[in-house]
Amino acid sequence: MNFIIEQDKLSQLLDAASLAIPTRPTDPILGAILLVADAETQTLSATSFNLSLGIHSKTKANIKISGVAALPGKLLADTIGYLKGELCFELEERTCIISHSSGKRRIQSFNPSEFPQLPTGGDRSITLPVKKFLAAIRATLFATSKDETRPVITGVNFKFERDRWQAGATDSHRLALVSAAFDADMAENIEFTVSYKNLQEIEKILSTKSENSTCTLYFNSNFVEFNLPNTRITSRLLEGEFPKLDSLIPTSFQHEFYVDKAALETGLKRVATLAEKKSKTVKTIWDVNNQQLTLYTESTDVGNAIESLIIKANSTSNEQLGIGFNLTYLAEAVKYVTTDEIVIKSNGASRPAIVCPVGGILNQLTLVMPVLISSGYEIDKPANTNTTPASNPAEVAQTQSSKNVESPEVTETVAQIESEPSSETSETAQTTKAKRNRQSKPKAAVTV
Amino acid sequence: MNFIIEQDKLSQLLDAASLAIPTRPTDPILGAILLVADAETQTLSATSFNLSLGIHSKTKANIKISGVAALPGKLLADTIGYLKGELCFELEERTCIISHSSGKRRIQSFNPSEFPQLPTGGDRSITLPVKKFLAAIRATLFATSKDETRPVITGVNFKFERDRWQAGATDSHRLALVSAAFDADMAENIEFTVSYKNLQEIEKILSTKSENSTCTLYFNSNFVEFNLPNTRITSRLLEGEFPKLDSLIPTSFQHEFYVDKAALETGLKRVATLAEKKSKTVKTIWDVNNQQLTLYTESTDVGNAIESLIIKANSTSNEQLGIGFNLTYLAEAVKYVTTDEIVIKSNGASRPAIVCPVGGILNQLTLVMPVLISSGYEIDKPANTNTTPASNPAEVAQTQSSKNVESPEVTETVAQIESEPSSETSETAQTTKAKRNRQSKPKAAVTV
Repeated sequence: MNFIIEQDKLSQLLDAASLAIPTRPTDPILGAILLVADAETQTLSATSFNLSLGIHSKTKANIKISGVAALPGKLLADTIGYLKGELCFELEERTCIISHSSGKRRIQSFNPSEFPQLPTGGDRSITLPVKKFLAAIRATLFATSKDETRPVITGVNFKFERDRWQAGATDSHRLALVSAAFDADMAENIEFTVSYKNLQEIEKILSTKSENSTCTLYFNSNFVEFNLPNTRITSRLLEGEFPKLDSLIPTSFQHEFYVDKAALETGLKRVATLAEKKSKTVKTIWDVNNQQLTLYTESTDVGNAIESLIIKANSTSNEQLGIGFNLTYLAEAVKYVTTDEIVIKSNGASRPAIVCPVGGILNQLTLVMPVLISSGYEIDKPANTNTTPASNPAEVAQTQSSKNVESPEVTETVAQIESEPSSETSETAQTTKAKRNRQSKPKAAVTV
Repeated sequence: MNFIIEQDKLSQLLDAASLAIPTRPTDPILGAILLVADAETQTLSATSFNLSLGIHSKTKANIKISGVAALPGKLLADTIGYLKGELCFELEERTCIISHSSGKRRIQSFNPSEFPQLPTGGDRSITLPVKKFLAAIRATLFATSKDETRPVITGVNFKFERDRWQAGATDSHRLALVSAAFDADMAENIEFTVSYKNLQEIEKILSTKSENSTCTLYFNSNFVEFNLPNTRITSRLLEGEFPKLDSLIPTSFQHEFYVDKAALETGLKRVATLAEKKSKTVKTIWDVNNQQLTLYTESTDVGNAIESLIIKANSTSNEQLGIGFNLTYLAEAVKYVTTDEIVIKSNGASRPAIVCPVGGILNQLTLVMPVLISSGYEIDKPANTNTTPASNPAEVAQTQSSKNVESPEVTETVAQIESEPSSETSETAQTTKAKRNRQSKPKAAVTV
């Protein structure tokens, strides 16, 4: 093996391959990057494979003598990362000698024949635009479960039908689903699930490719292969049947609230500092008459926060609607929408809500289960003689001095929701202590 | 209490005060920031004190009613950090109500009378330019010990004499010392030691102040007070006698090597990836005849790295000099020099070397103890039939193809140092295994 290559071209190749290198490889060879230099095609390739994810990238190089070396991957990528200019690689038996303008490295190669064969994805193929495929991964990845006891839902499920394809994920408290039209000559529907761990790395590689390029997927029952310009990624598939997500999405909604994405994101961040640390609940109060959304959080013995935003509401009733959410789940559903405007659809305080972009390149939604807000926060509050009653939201609203929150409607909204008897009366029977200590998971899980 | 203030002005105040807020306060009041609004002077101050470090900052604000509140510090700083524009603060009994254009917060105040009194530094004072004081902290902080069993050396020691002042730190493997001329009317010499934990935060505050401003220090036997524009910092002093560092610095040197700082920094980073992971040793070969420095690292069974740099050498002899260093210690000594050129001074392979700036606003040096390189790396190497003998540096040099390292002198240097019998013959009696496993701490510690 003998070749010359520019440092930046090689670094790109090695950075991609490094994504499939485990931190602590079970076998040293799985920590290696396989370099293959081909004098005939003047091509250098770098391959890594941790038995679940495989990455194979190639680039043009000045190859004088063909050859193969399996070098310690992270070490090689780090070493090359610090160099500059033209690099010369030579192989002497199992020693790779790398020379550059002011120095030289010798790195021992593993036995390249021990490097595991990268599986191929099979014969069946589908082609997608990189732009849409990348958007689909980003719109679903965050909603995957991180609980390894039920492996299949730690992945994103992909489905391809004759006229549409979709990607979906759920951690049983929320679900994310995207779909797009499709025109493929397929003999049968195709479905597979890829783990979030592999998709995280695949997302990184996709984001380095031109948005106008395409990705061709080949798959069999165990592996899927993603073919990109100069890069081929192979991922093992997760076994098991993925829950049917489509049936969980309500088909019609009583309320649709349009809101500016950036304003809602900022509003949620602002009230988050005063949400109860463990439960992280936010109360959202949708005021159809005044076209206003109020966000309310409260932390026992510490204080509370209230923020108001302008909305555009389409609703079957003019009543104010109060819905409790896990703040993190709602904030993530908003974060992964890429359009300027968002629509939140609901059928009431105890029914799942969905967060969708207005426009965008995919049909996208995140379903978030509401959290019980019962008949208000202060019912849970123990008598505390050391603190003044700071956390009565009605009082907050009454003492408002700043303009936007001054409207009596906000006062009414808050007061009404606080005093409204909860529809979930069983919940209010719980002890104060138990309620304060519990994680505020959605009261009804997505049944998957 | 009732006042109006711009968010950015308040955020600055709170960010500074947050630096003295512990992550887990032993007493909730130590997690508080004390806000004091004074209508007479139209001044708002924020104070934090963890019983070791205290920070008191003030700013002008529109104060309508004077008052005091002790609010949870991190929560307050986070909450205000997300807001924008004009903020209105009101206190109703123990509840602080913060209003802004689109929302409102209520935060419970602790009892402000429980907030601990910030100690003062005493009557004796010294004034230093912020620029030099900040440079002195940065040039010494990295060399402090992190071992709490000997608290006094976890700090930087400051000494003030009639005509000079100095700051010094050591972790017993290296020491950093800076000094500058001084013209003070002092009745007696002054010396105190401030912990690295407090100095880390003090450095952050100093770096927000104008370089042209001054810092006045007041001190007694327990505390030092740093008076800066609009900010007063109080730090507890470390007890115990600090080692006399001055006497450890050699007064004359046989060798002086001038080298470009950036080139040496890059060179060390480049060879670091192939240094033995545990010992992190780098061999430096100083070639006076060819005005060249060669850096060499080796990792058993993995490979080795060699880099060459141009130097300007002043030496009493023309012999090549090989010195082993702990790579991290040498790299840090170089990193914290702020001039473009560096001079490394030495009296031989087994004697302490010092790293100094060429120029700069302070007399600065870092003393680094050399590491035993004995009679070469390959003596330690076990026979390994799986790998080719890649790690013979002489061979590396002989097969050099790139220009800068092609000189036969590099070969000679390496070969010579490799074959030269070590002056530390006892060291070579150690077993191969023990040597490969041991941390490469300097062979002679700084006796402090």
